[in-house]
Amino acid sequence: MSCNLTIRQLFDYETWTYTYLLWDEQTKEAAIIDSVLEQKDRDLKLIQQLGLALKYSMDTHIHADHITANGPLRQATGCEIVLHSNSCSACATILAKDNDVFMLGDQSITIWHTPGHTDNDISFIVDGAVFTGDTMLIRDCGRTDFQKGDTQAMYESLHRLLSLPDNTIVYPGHDYKGFTSSSIGEERQFNTRVGNGKSYDDFKHMMDNLNLPNPRRIDVSVPGNMACGMI
Amino acid sequence: MSCNLTIRQLFDYETWTYTYLLWDEQTKEAAIIDSVLEQKDRDLKLIQQLGLALKYSMDTHIHADHITANGPLRQATGCEIVLHSNSCSACATILAKDNDVFMLGDQSITIWHTPGHTDNDISFIVDGAVFTGDTMLIRDCGRTDFQKGDTQAMYESLHRLLSLPDNTIVYPGHDYKGFTSSSIGEERQFNTRVGNGKSYDDFKHMMDNLNLPNPRRIDVSVPGNMACGMI
Repeated sequence: MSCNLTIRQLFDYETWTYTYLLWDEQTKEAAIIDSVLEQKDRDLKLIQQLGLALKYSMDTHIHADHITANGPLRQATGCEIVLHSNSCSACATILAKDNDVFMLGDQSITIWHTPGHTDNDISFIVDGAVFTGDTMLIRDCGRTDFQKGDTQAMYESLHRLLSLPDNTIVYPGHDYKGFTSSSIGEERQFNTRVGNGKSYDDFKHMMDNLNLPNPRRIDVSVPGNMACGMI
Repeated sequence: MSCNLTIRQLFDYETWTYTYLLWDEQTKEAAIIDSVLEQKDRDLKLIQQLGLALKYSMDTHIHADHITANGPLRQATGCEIVLHSNSCSACATILAKDNDVFMLGDQSITIWHTPGHTDNDISFIVDGAVFTGDTMLIRDCGRTDFQKGDTQAMYESLHRLLSLPDNTIVYPGHDYKGFTSSSIGEERQFNTRVGNGKSYDDFKHMMDNLNLPNPRRIDVSVPGNMACGMI
């Protein structure tokens, strides 16, 4: 891990969402990943205290379980809003594509398009770590049964993420057991959905039988996120 | 931060407690700090998956808000239980004192006696980070109004912690706003209790007027922790 990139994990207790603030220690240029509307004041205060210049507000996908703070953060800081092009969001500043690279000082953030949970999921790869949103979760993965989810695409995205080096830290979008991070090496062995070389047929059988209820905030979250949280 | 010491933060949603698992990558010797009884199966499974040898189970103090897993972890792994000598715990393996040093491979964990919240608080100092229990919290500190708490001692302990280098990562015992870590440099500026050179008189005035309710689990937690969670 480069000593110049600092990562700060933040948590929203209401929606169990992890937000990440990352910055280059040299230039103080910063990005926020998966912000939560209700936490914008907390996060803006932290950004101000740390003396950071927010350059990017990035979402891993159009969320169904919480509303982003992208718009209010842009209003307050002038940052650029980054979403994947498949989101078709009219309010994003940048509609990113696979392998696009964003810089914080000399530190690069590489975008991987990792669809499956939705058609617009992206993972963010930095030196030594990956932010996996709802694609790879710790010992788990996101559901694929709504919002243009696709089980085959999820299987491929998870395997693409597993191609990263073993010691890459995995920072997920959520966790429901109290884990805050994992590593690619661990997930390659112990991920219950694809670990230990699980076949696509076994994976599909699991995904087809999850029987999950709809997220309780999907009706307000998806349109709210399409509007960058300016509601 | 040394590349050989890995730190994994864990969270208990019921009591909002942070548990830390740290290990030496070379030897796989590990320590757990502030374990939670209800999470012992999760934590033992993680220790096993990571191939770690648990050497120490350490508590920052005799907690009033949750019960430790020290005893069950010792039973399962043969680890040593470390508490401060003031805890007078009959079940600890080691009653530690200020400046005692514990090793995980070549990585040292130095104990600082940092009383104030109780008379038996210890902080654990490793290369680049400090685990502060309920002494230093993020922008805050622990209460001093029960369990032999002492406002003067807390002020001195916080200032001792503030003597660490600016870039030392602060890992607290709890946080109630969704922060997971801070740094000594930030706390020296922004800690609301002692930051920005606040005087002892101002600090004492704040601490004397917190008007907090008793922790709801104090009646079972303190005796449960004196018994190392073997209840």
